[in-house]
Amino acid sequence: MDEIIYKPIGIIHSPFKTPENVPIQHTGAKGEIGTIEIYPEFAEGLADLHGFSHIIVLFHMHLVEYHKLKVIPFLDTVERGIFSTRAPVRPNPIGLTVVKLIKIEGNLITVENIDMIDKTPLLDIKPCLPMIDDLQDIKLGWLTGKIEQFAIARSDSRFMKKSSYKNGKT
Amino acid sequence: MDEIIYKPIGIIHSPFKTPENVPIQHTGAKGEIGTIEIYPEFAEGLADLHGFSHIIVLFHMHLVEYHKLKVIPFLDTVERGIFSTRAPVRPNPIGLTVVKLIKIEGNLITVENIDMIDKTPLLDIKPCLPMIDDLQDIKLGWLTGKIEQFAIARSDSRFMKKSSYKNGKT
Repeated sequence: MDEIIYKPIGIIHSPFKTPENVPIQHTGAKGEIGTIEIYPEFAEGLADLHGFSHIIVLFHMHLVEYHKLKVIPFLDTVERGIFSTRAPVRPNPIGLTVVKLIKIEGNLITVENIDMIDKTPLLDIKPCLPMIDDLQDIKLGWLTGKIEQFAIARSDSRFMKKSSYKNGKT
Repeated sequence: MDEIIYKPIGIIHSPFKTPENVPIQHTGAKGEIGTIEIYPEFAEGLADLHGFSHIIVLFHMHLVEYHKLKVIPFLDTVERGIFSTRAPVRPNPIGLTVVKLIKIEGNLITVENIDMIDKTPLLDIKPCLPMIDDLQDIKLGWLTGKIEQFAIARSDSRFMKKSSYKNGKT
């Protein structure tokens, strides 16, 4: 399989209009409200979603134009392997965020804890279930002791090609 | 944006050779060991991953040939909106599983709790962080009281086109 082709099923409307100064994780995006617009032809698939308090949103990080296998992540000062980070410059720039579901009206989902950039293409929505049975078990590698910083850390432009950003591709 | 094009960054080796009788969630796949093979050109990106106990695996559900907006999921007897389920026949068939990291040797990652089918194309790997601050808060909609069944439930062939499966596309 050489290529995998997906199509956006909607678009994310967010208060963050540029890639700078965005929460770097949804856990740092408390109170940030956004709207997920599902294209009308997919809206029937939203049935029964209203009962879930949290949903997983998969999206295409459309401003990413290259990838790197090692990056200095926002929360560190040394290079880390890209797959041990949430940095956007991944070989396949798929973003994952867990948001709090506020309401669904037609094809519009209002959510809280949004950390995507405005106009991000939507790939999928899944109900959020408990993912790890025993949270005592979890080990966080190089992020140990750092994840509290998600609450205050914000992005900068380190993963942007300035040229593309200046061209107004947001 | 009309099309989003990704490329597999690896392949998943799993004990499950066919789409039937597979755990329907990683929480039902305890003890199931598999190997994630990253293509050598991306292996450098695995640096620093070894410190994490759990990783998120995004993969392309390559046997899915159609989508439906309402499905009868494995754990129910009535139709539900596809985005309120984890059923594979989604508009963009991206799968998400949290696996336990056992070891990394070169470009091979040995993991536990695998619920993918053998030879599934790999899209991305991310470190697994706690996703919801207060698990007391979580509401599970139509899955309320059913998720314990993940531990024993197995898939059947309901989401397969028999023709494709008999053609040996696994």
